[in-house]
Amino acid sequence: MGKRKKESVKNQYNHEFCIIKSDTNKNNYKICGKIWIEGENGTFLGIGRLILLKKIQKYGSILKAAKAMNMSYKKAWELVDSINKQAKKPIVITKKGGRQGGGTVLTEEGKKLIKEFEKLQQKFKNFLNNEITKLSSLRD
Amino acid sequence: MGKRKKESVKNQYNHEFCIIKSDTNKNNYKICGKIWIEGENGTFLGIGRLILLKKIQKYGSILKAAKAMNMSYKKAWELVDSINKQAKKPIVITKKGGRQGGGTVLTEEGKKLIKEFEKLQQKFKNFLNNEITKLSSLRD
Repeated sequence: MGKRKKESVKNQYNHEFCIIKSDTNKNNYKICGKIWIEGENGTFLGIGRLILLKKIQKYGSILKAAKAMNMSYKKAWELVDSINKQAKKPIVITKKGGRQGGGTVLTEEGKKLIKEFEKLQQKFKNFLNNEITKLSSLRD
Repeated sequence: MGKRKKESVKNQYNHEFCIIKSDTNKNNYKICGKIWIEGENGTFLGIGRLILLKKIQKYGSILKAAKAMNMSYKKAWELVDSINKQAKKPIVITKKGGRQGGGTVLTEEGKKLIKEFEKLQQKFKNFLNNEITKLSSLRD
């Protein structure tokens, strides 16, 4: 895990899921969890980075994405740099000038990565949802 | 998540699993995750508490279990108290005196809880192991 610094993104967004056990009203147990992907230099992709990538996709700008997340530009830039450096192919690229005035965009690889990671998170939610109902020691 | 304090147990034991992608040597991605159960007052059972319960089962003493984990007796007692208060039935009980000289033991409920939680953690590892190989965006 190393010495990763946590910034405000950690407080603003939930990086974990909690599924409330719903098959009975007798108790209020929740099963909670989080998953992320690590590369050679620590975190490669987690919920915070996923949200950042999606904001970049939306705004076409790291600065605007950072602002939307109450994150410093420096921090956002470092996260993007960390993702790009650990990925097989670039995930976020900056286009200079051109007819549409340039901007920062996600590559096809980036879009694929987002899609796969979101699918993984959904499967994880399903896993938690499925398991919580099986825990008889919480029920009886 | 609230204001849960983390003590040394957090540093001594890994509360998360990381599974290294093993189907290729081209990269070194790991999928990591952790799961825990929350009750009405925050954490009910996670890896740290699981280890504590197993040490209590081994040593028959909260004090010895705490020492084995480099944890203060106060902290260990608070964790046991938190588990007992949130459980349907007592998980850890203290027997006074008697032929075997008393001591702290896990109830049948406690043993069942440990077994189920370990099974859940194993299933979670299997889930991570299964998913990491499917992430084609990490492979190509």
